[in-house]
Amino acid sequence: MAGSTFGEAFRISTFGESHGEAVGVIVDGATPGVELDEAYIQVQMDRRKPGQSSVTTPRKEYDKVKIVSGIFQGKTTGTPLMIILYNHDMKPEAYQDIHEAFRPGHADFSYTQKYGIRDYRGSGRASGRETAGRVAGGAVARKLLERRGVQVLAYTSAIGGIACQTFDEAAIEANAVRACDPEAAEQMIQLVEELGRQGDSCGGIVECRIRGAAAGLGEPVFDKLDAELAKAMLSIGAVKGIEFGAGFEAASMRGSQHNDAMDGGGFRTNHAGGIVGGISTGQDIVFRVAVKPTSSISLPQQTINIHGEEQMISTIGRHDPCICPRIVPVIEAMACLVLEDQYKRQAAMLG
Amino acid sequence: MAGSTFGEAFRISTFGESHGEAVGVIVDGATPGVELDEAYIQVQMDRRKPGQSSVTTPRKEYDKVKIVSGIFQGKTTGTPLMIILYNHDMKPEAYQDIHEAFRPGHADFSYTQKYGIRDYRGSGRASGRETAGRVAGGAVARKLLERRGVQVLAYTSAIGGIACQTFDEAAIEANAVRACDPEAAEQMIQLVEELGRQGDSCGGIVECRIRGAAAGLGEPVFDKLDAELAKAMLSIGAVKGIEFGAGFEAASMRGSQHNDAMDGGGFRTNHAGGIVGGISTGQDIVFRVAVKPTSSISLPQQTINIHGEEQMISTIGRHDPCICPRIVPVIEAMACLVLEDQYKRQAAMLG
Amino acid sequence: MAGSTFGEAFRISTFGESHGEAVGVIVDGATPGVELDEAYIQVQMDRRKPGQSSVTTPRKEYDKVKIVSGIFQGKTTGTPLMIILYNHDMKPEAYQDIHEAFRPGHADFSYTQKYGIRDYRGSGRASGRETAGRVAGGAVARKLLERRGVQVLAYTSAIGGIACQTFDEAAIEANAVRACDPEAAEQMIQLVEELGRQGDSCGGIVECRIRGAAAGLGEPVFDKLDAELAKAMLSIGAVKGIEFGAGFEAASMRGSQHNDAMDGGGFRTNHAGGIVGGISTGQDIVFRVAVKPTSSISLPQQTINIHGEEQMISTIGRHDPCICPRIVPVIEAMACLVLEDQYKRQAAMLG
Amino acid sequence: MAGSTFGEAFRISTFGESHGEAVGVIVDGATPGVELDEAYIQVQMDRRKPGQSSVTTPRKEYDKVKIVSGIFQGKTTGTPLMIILYNHDMKPEAYQDIHEAFRPGHADFSYTQKYGIRDYRGSGRASGRETAGRVAGGAVARKLLERRGVQVLAYTSAIGGIACQTFDEAAIEANAVRACDPEAAEQMIQLVEELGRQGDSCGGIVECRIRGAAAGLGEPVFDKLDAELAKAMLSIGAVKGIEFGAGFEAASMRGSQHNDAMDGGGFRTNHAGGIVGGISTGQDIVFRVAVKPTSSISLPQQTINIHGEEQMISTIGRHDPCICPRIVPVIEAMACLVLEDQYKRQAAMLG
Repeated sequence: MAGSTFGEAFRISTFGESHGEAVGVIVDGATPGVELDEAYIQVQMDRRKPGQSSVTTPRKEYDKVKIVSGIFQGKTTGTPLMIILYNHDMKPEAYQDIHEAFRPGHADFSYTQKYGIRDYRGSGRASGRETAGRVAGGAVARKLLERRGVQVLAYTSAIGGIACQTFDEAAIEANAVRACDPEAAEQMIQLVEELGRQGDSCGGIVECRIRGAAAGLGEPVFDKLDAELAKAMLSIGAVKGIEFGAGFEAASMRGSQHNDAMDGGGFRTNHAGGIVGGISTGQDIVFRVAVKPTSSISLPQQTINIHGEEQMISTIGRHDPCICPRIVPVIEAMACLVLEDQYKRQAAMLG
Repeated sequence: MAGSTFGEAFRISTFGESHGEAVGVIVDGATPGVELDEAYIQVQMDRRKPGQSSVTTPRKEYDKVKIVSGIFQGKTTGTPLMIILYNHDMKPEAYQDIHEAFRPGHADFSYTQKYGIRDYRGSGRASGRETAGRVAGGAVARKLLERRGVQVLAYTSAIGGIACQTFDEAAIEANAVRACDPEAAEQMIQLVEELGRQGDSCGGIVECRIRGAAAGLGEPVFDKLDAELAKAMLSIGAVKGIEFGAGFEAASMRGSQHNDAMDGGGFRTNHAGGIVGGISTGQDIVFRVAVKPTSSISLPQQTINIHGEEQMISTIGRHDPCICPRIVPVIEAMACLVLEDQYKRQAAMLG
Repeated sequence: MAGSTFGEAFRISTFGESHGEAVGVIVDGATPGVELDEAYIQVQMDRRKPGQSSVTTPRKEYDKVKIVSGIFQGKTTGTPLMIILYNHDMKPEAYQDIHEAFRPGHADFSYTQKYGIRDYRGSGRASGRETAGRVAGGAVARKLLERRGVQVLAYTSAIGGIACQTFDEAAIEANAVRACDPEAAEQMIQLVEELGRQGDSCGGIVECRIRGAAAGLGEPVFDKLDAELAKAMLSIGAVKGIEFGAGFEAASMRGSQHNDAMDGGGFRTNHAGGIVGGISTGQDIVFRVAVKPTSSISLPQQTINIHGEEQMISTIGRHDPCICPRIVPVIEAMACLVLEDQYKRQAAMLG
Repeated sequence: MAGSTFGEAFRISTFGESHGEAVGVIVDGATPGVELDEAYIQVQMDRRKPGQSSVTTPRKEYDKVKIVSGIFQGKTTGTPLMIILYNHDMKPEAYQDIHEAFRPGHADFSYTQKYGIRDYRGSGRASGRETAGRVAGGAVARKLLERRGVQVLAYTSAIGGIACQTFDEAAIEANAVRACDPEAAEQMIQLVEELGRQGDSCGGIVECRIRGAAAGLGEPVFDKLDAELAKAMLSIGAVKGIEFGAGFEAASMRGSQHNDAMDGGGFRTNHAGGIVGGISTGQDIVFRVAVKPTSSISLPQQTINIHGEEQMISTIGRHDPCICPRIVPVIEAMACLVLEDQYKRQAAMLG
């Protein structure tokens, strides 16, 4: 019932804290006999790692992938993969003088309420660093999905109020914010850099599009595909909302507009986002997540400490003024985990 | 791995189809020794049942609660409660002539893709009628939460583009759409009635506010409180999105705006919606869900049938032009289930 | 975490008390499109029901199978089957005068310690009557296993110290104790009838043999096939032990004796009971369970009541002096549930 | 659905192969704020490690405990503990010339049937070495149980037909086979040494006694305390049976003998082994497991290889002629895991 495990038929369990010795993941349920190596996983880790560009934190982590178990002669064996990523650039001392204060927007207060004890070094387990294990586990899922012809693609669609106007897939990995519109990307980068200088931060929206997923995925009535994706995304610290297809706009639409008509060529529209009744239709699966502004800002903020005393606080440390570009591979990883899990659950149901 | 069970420490499993003999639920994990009777559950069933007003379907279901097990001498025993709700006003013949067609917006196509077989009588298991079992199970959770001083309240905040401007709690159950603004409610009712006459439908937004929940609920890193609530809500057929606190607006905010400062009196704001790092803070938990327009409309729509042949279809039957008023108790029920489950999980962690 | 659900990919949840209104089961995860009707399940219920012969309790339950959901046009739909068995011959008043006493060998004391409340009518949920739901659910699994060519067969191999000396499969269902040796069966029946007259009871051993199971079933390292079968069997109230293949005799054997050699014809022996490393080998799966003497006896016994006062007690009521013949179909049902679950888990792993 | 995770409220996931880089465990759900260090866990690892005496394998593993996460300032934080044990004395080349043969009694054949691929180096994941992670995880559970006043004690009660005649608790850790009778221990050691010289092996029986466990543990109807213990024990590779209290002897007893009478002083006997109706009674919990002879023997045996060709095989390598002394701490570890899990589940139910 503790919550560090995700998935049923394809399952990951993550471990590790921001400024502990390592973070990592156990992946259980991988199809045996599939070629997999550290280099394949490293590609995804490199997309998530800090220090990639001017808009990300200068913390230096190599996130070098080490597969400890589950691979034999270059192939998965069906037994658990353990993947470990050692921490290098830890500066726990940076947190020493704020270890009794509750940083606004951080989980300091809620963790203390829950556990009565808190690893204050860089948010401990509540740090975004925990997602490194997810990306490693998601890479294994991605490998299995490749064999099924499924492609999972996420990208920034808005940052700080600046929205993408075009969809240029080739541009996504070519700009520092992973936006799908290169012109909007320029403005976003300027904004993020400016906010970084000010000691402030901003939020954004990341869209995810899954192509090639089979129809029939999702387990009614509670483990629907959209329900599982929603859980997966909201389990990422900075995510505050999700919508599928037309999403919140559907609230203002008529049924005659929102219903996706079919003809001999298939569905004419995709207001549903590729999921109806919680089951994939074979169309692209499309959803968007709301990403909150990074909590760590150096502007002074009002707070209290564990003794209930009021104080001002400036979060020193090394942080991303906008987390969108680095959350993109995490969103993809979680989507991969859900998809592979649902494929395997479908196989069990029919099997 | 089949998906008809929800929750870990407090768990429900639902069964039943729209035009089968009955729908219902098994509730497992209820605290023993708690007074509970059918009348208490009936109150919630009556809020969800069809035929309540001019804006809901004329299908007549009594949804009379029958507790079959788990109660002895008026109290829970800690063993499974089985609650059954017999169907009465079934008209499976109404679906006979469209049983080969895929109704747009319905799960007809995706269910057929998944299972290869489909109970076409009123959508079978994909019907909103399945949620009757959830409301019954949620009522048990609500009873347990009452003892903890937790109150779960949902209400319509927008329908078809008409948004509530005020929050009048007393008005909610006094108007047919369960809106929190009685003036907006009037306009909403007119719109829904008009759409009903036209054979069309519309969507809306339902907000949920949970008061009195303890700080410390939620199980990082995957079973966070918001992640579980998101899954719960997206598991409801008509829901297409969810956002917590500032939600999608956070995407346009600065960290200095979004972070909730604290002082001696506690949090000054609640942009986080009462959940930080996936754990409750003790503030009100606030989220909104996007509800799509009812799929069943009598306006003619383009579709295909199971043979791939194109045809026009009008969904005859008895349907709600807007599902918001009847989804309100379902959203409350799911929220109750998540909360009670998390309370018990917290007890396990500390216990 | 409450424990009324069994299985992962093929899952049952039971409900109901001995002298409540009904007992039953939800079956989730059945393969869709499989022909199934009440008559098929009834066959198994009739093997378990009371009143079959002179050696079983005279309580009269028809155990008439009612499938409430999950079947459409004679076939499974992939959605939950709910099967209910109404109780008829309840005599809760028979328990009124002992409702404060803890009957020796019964769960009266431990249930009271656990829940603080206890449905004392015929042991409530702790009654063997709860297994009716298991047999119904197991019949669904049996149906699915038939398609795989798997046969699950249990039979009494010893009662009260009288052991079968031969294996005559045809004799099993032809004698009242379901023993595999018709001569031993005669002695067993005499013993059980005599004990019934004395107001005493006795235990026995039931052996189970599974034929036709594929090699490769079982999920290392914790959900091994033998581990899951052991859990399934020990979850039956009267079972106090299990052994596979050579079982406890293996403790006295040499490795050179116990190891099952292989040659071109396959395994030469089956000391392992068809499971090695927790995975099926394709040989017959063979295990034996120890069944304790029925707790309910009318001989006077020393006990205490809920106030701690000493008293003598005679369990009036209608009971089986030996539960072996009626536990046989329960053991088969549980074995079917484990097997079908493991087949589906294997499909997920490879899928 | 893959099976490398055990427990619900207190949960472990193990990883690693015999001749891979490391074995280990993630422990999720530990109560926060509990003092725990590597030295405490090391004590249990040292009891399990190879090379302890003349009757265990000469393979040299230090099994030095490394806690990678979940501890802060010497206390548990409530977040996952990852504990890793690096392998040192690997000799994968020892398995090169038998990598195509199926060793009798080993999981070589069944693993190949299941996964289609097999890490043949020292049985890979099917090796007893996997239990190192269990012992590390079990040590965490043991620490938590200490606070509850629960003591878990296992010991050898028979080896190769030689049975203990006395119970001398102080003698257990003082003899190389961990037997509870020092005189029998002498004979056992001679037998095991002799079998080692012969290249053969033998089995035995290990008894486990749990003292101080509260009444009320166990979750009817499927997750009963004895059912969970049975699963836990049968999940250990070499275990072929389990019995509680009177166990298989109960099959020959009368109800009037087996029922445990109560008086003002509590239970007069403990034929039930401390568990009735699947729930602990507060008495000692007592069970015995059958341990098969070590599969690895150097005597020549008949087998086939992956091509179906017959061949003789002698298992070269470093093995224990009898696994009982080293399985004792594994049995204790699994029992600790079950107990702590059930305590937490009980807390959830009441909480």
